[in-house]
Amino acid sequence: MSPDAVLVDGMPAAHLSVLDRGLHYGDGVFETIACRRGRARFLALHLQRLMRGCDRLAIARPDTEQLRAEIEQLAHQAAPALIKLIVTRGNATARGYAPRGDERSTRLLLRYPWPEDSSQARDGINARVGQLKLGENPALAGIKHLNRLEQVLARSEVDASGALETLLFSSSGRLISGTMSNVFLVRDNRVATPRLDVCGVEGIMRAIVMREGARTQHGIEECVLSRADLDAAEEIFLTNARIGIWPVRALDGRRFTPGRITRGLQRLLQPLLEEPRDG
Amino acid sequence: MSPDAVLVDGMPAAHLSVLDRGLHYGDGVFETIACRRGRARFLALHLQRLMRGCDRLAIARPDTEQLRAEIEQLAHQAAPALIKLIVTRGNATARGYAPRGDERSTRLLLRYPWPEDSSQARDGINARVGQLKLGENPALAGIKHLNRLEQVLARSEVDASGALETLLFSSSGRLISGTMSNVFLVRDNRVATPRLDVCGVEGIMRAIVMREGARTQHGIEECVLSRADLDAAEEIFLTNARIGIWPVRALDGRRFTPGRITRGLQRLLQPLLEEPRDG
Repeated sequence: MSPDAVLVDGMPAAHLSVLDRGLHYGDGVFETIACRRGRARFLALHLQRLMRGCDRLAIARPDTEQLRAEIEQLAHQAAPALIKLIVTRGNATARGYAPRGDERSTRLLLRYPWPEDSSQARDGINARVGQLKLGENPALAGIKHLNRLEQVLARSEVDASGALETLLFSSSGRLISGTMSNVFLVRDNRVATPRLDVCGVEGIMRAIVMREGARTQHGIEECVLSRADLDAAEEIFLTNARIGIWPVRALDGRRFTPGRITRGLQRLLQPLLEEPRDG
Repeated sequence: MSPDAVLVDGMPAAHLSVLDRGLHYGDGVFETIACRRGRARFLALHLQRLMRGCDRLAIARPDTEQLRAEIEQLAHQAAPALIKLIVTRGNATARGYAPRGDERSTRLLLRYPWPEDSSQARDGINARVGQLKLGENPALAGIKHLNRLEQVLARSEVDASGALETLLFSSSGRLISGTMSNVFLVRDNRVATPRLDVCGVEGIMRAIVMREGARTQHGIEECVLSRADLDAAEEIFLTNARIGIWPVRALDGRRFTPGRITRGLQRLLQPLLEEPRDG
């Protein structure tokens, strides 16, 4: 699936400089923004995370209002779409890893037609546990940076099960996330999601589920989770900005019935997904 | 410093597709090749490592003979130069991390003028130990892939000492390498270099030093090394394809005199660096 519109630094373009540090080092951050009914969903939250990522990597922040205007313009159409936003440190002004500090960041927007999942996905998907273990680095944890080879390799693992998502543990054995989603476990009426201080991406939908969950009787706990916690879970669900909540119906063959708490959170979220708002 | 020649898939170009997976995910590998007297030094070894990296990531190998011819043509000039070779998985043929398997890899060659270091570097440099700890992932260890944010961050650490290189430990406390070099420790007439099975890049000059070292009375051992090993070292030296061997003269203020074994290996290597050969 190809993008139907691309802007590089605000101008229609199909190419980027060969000197861009995003290419040379994965030196940048990105967002995937769901667009429905002509609006970019949770745009304020996406832009906030993007700026946090820029700050963590000491990348020059792009102009927020300019970026917002470009995204709103791309989103303003009837058909649902996904916008991928990439901000890199910009062109290398010197050879080598060290930034000189005078780089001007590059912003890239790609709009894709909304990918239609099976209509059954909302009722539960097949997932698997990946072989690959994520490296742990607090300096990169939480942000949505462009160093994504681990996710590429995890998605490349041979899989005959037809799983839609792969759950990943870290090198020290912590449950972290899916390759493109965050994960939540339910047990004894309590909901938990992995703490992401050594690796993983702090998803926008994860933040929204935690926020909305806090308004119900089931607060959601962020904690260190292990293989044993995964095995003991009564309900498992996945989140990302596009899918909202996907219940897990089978994990490496173990069957689940999407449960009461997962269903409750799905209902709570539904209006937010259908009627896009900013934050 | 800008490149004075760039080839994308064999053609002069300044730009690359915005769909390239090298940009989106750091999904590729690279080499930095020293060119002296009109020849690309250790080209056979660089191409071998590149192909190993492609195989590890399941990236379609570029045509070796074509690539070799392009590099030799760029190297064929009087002035010394560095050629950076990047091979990515190519343009995304679908959205998302998973490769479809039908991608055609992109090859990128950038030639830079030789960067002149201080003439004293051969007699020893200042180094420091970095704050950042490298994440451990055997799936990515050894190869020179494009996910280099850790190196970017390590080189960005505030440093008032004027160190030319930063030594890095992994998350579990193993000594691994510099940001752009491999490291060797000498103690009691024995030479050791870190095993790179959890992270780090298996450098071309590291392989050459190990090969040449094996011909002397001092075999070079590859092993797990700790902070205590670094502290106990009597000589420390760094290697990469451009610099050959740099002795460490000071590490976070601790002084060293470039020692007998480091000097001996420098003498052994000198003819190989001056009169470029293929392997």
